[in-house]
Amino acid sequence: MAGRGVIGSVPAIENPYLFVSRNARWQPMFVPVNPDRPFSGVNLAESFADAYSRDHDADVGLIPCADGGTSLAQWAPGGLLYDHALMQARLAMRTSVLRGILWHQGESDCSREASAVYAEKLTEMLTALRHDLGLPEIPIILGALGDYLADYDEGTRTYYPVINAALRHVAETVPFAAFAPADGLGAKPDHLHFDAPALREFGLRYYAAYRTVEPPADESTLRFAEDGRTHTQMEQL
Amino acid sequence: MAGRGVIGSVPAIENPYLFVSRNARWQPMFVPVNPDRPFSGVNLAESFADAYSRDHDADVGLIPCADGGTSLAQWAPGGLLYDHALMQARLAMRTSVLRGILWHQGESDCSREASAVYAEKLTEMLTALRHDLGLPEIPIILGALGDYLADYDEGTRTYYPVINAALRHVAETVPFAAFAPADGLGAKPDHLHFDAPALREFGLRYYAAYRTVEPPADESTLRFAEDGRTHTQMEQL
Repeated sequence: MAGRGVIGSVPAIENPYLFVSRNARWQPMFVPVNPDRPFSGVNLAESFADAYSRDHDADVGLIPCADGGTSLAQWAPGGLLYDHALMQARLAMRTSVLRGILWHQGESDCSREASAVYAEKLTEMLTALRHDLGLPEIPIILGALGDYLADYDEGTRTYYPVINAALRHVAETVPFAAFAPADGLGAKPDHLHFDAPALREFGLRYYAAYRTVEPPADESTLRFAEDGRTHTQMEQL
Repeated sequence: MAGRGVIGSVPAIENPYLFVSRNARWQPMFVPVNPDRPFSGVNLAESFADAYSRDHDADVGLIPCADGGTSLAQWAPGGLLYDHALMQARLAMRTSVLRGILWHQGESDCSREASAVYAEKLTEMLTALRHDLGLPEIPIILGALGDYLADYDEGTRTYYPVINAALRHVAETVPFAAFAPADGLGAKPDHLHFDAPALREFGLRYYAAYRTVEPPADESTLRFAEDGRTHTQMEQL
């Protein structure tokens, strides 16, 4: 999820310990975090990072890799989006420690054919990503699609529950994965994208899920960035 | 140069054949092209791409890699900015043909020590970049720093002419490189960044310089993107 919440419709997150990767360098976090389109907006990773940072008393860096409207097939290992995300993560790992992967996608797979193979293909992709990162136990948080999709087009309203069941299944069967529910979260007037207040809440749910699979603190995994601060970070797809 | 012209202070460029790389995919060009900071703005690559597209009757894709305020040392081969730019270019080359590199940098090297080695270090970096891209004859356009820097701080006003001489020297000694002059181009009130009208004009000067080193058209070098259109593209540092 790239994030399409209207900027300014929720209070900005004020936390000087939040960063975002730009050109493989860490910059103080600014919106839109994930500038994939001219209409990019508030993203759930903002409140996730804020919660993580406050809870751990640590810097948190986000690695935006999301691309709006994309299907799981477009994220296949070896494809452009996968390789781009992998490369951004690898560059970030030179100056920080990767602590988790946030995944939110599936609206474009709300069809009979795509939803039938979603769990299998997602498991394959996430397993490949962990392998390619050299981090077989990195936590992965998977969030549900919004129930407001019941008001979208026929294919979406028919198959989004299948995608949600697949996401939950992957979270339950892939080790160190967890599921963030989207129950009750609101949409923009398009009935397709979460609104900004929902994204703030969803980020906190992602963080609550993250806490259930977080590895124990291990100072040996911490490295220091150029500025001497420790950085942890989240890859956001 | 990331571009800091005030968006809206010049007419938007309306050309449906212009694209920008986002997550290694081509999107219709939108501003800011190079979203490295919250204050990113108009970039010279916009009018460059527009001129190229109209002249060649071709799609043009931009690969933004610029990072504001960086020194040449930060662009050394193997460093984060260099490797990020290389990776973005390589991903773009899967769906398009790289046709040129636009370089504009040097304000942060306006010191006695940095300006003295600027030509040598820049030649080394550009030679390495061509080698790593596998494109030893790819055109490289180098633009001058603005003369308004004469009104900036003492180090800058003293050494920007040295940097400009170095840029011109590199353009004259590196094969298939060319120089875009900045004479008369205006600044923002900060006396540090070109204003938007200047950037529009500067892009056209970059294009005029490009034309002097452009390789002959060669259909064999054209590949087709996913959407079946030919793409050419420019890497912008």
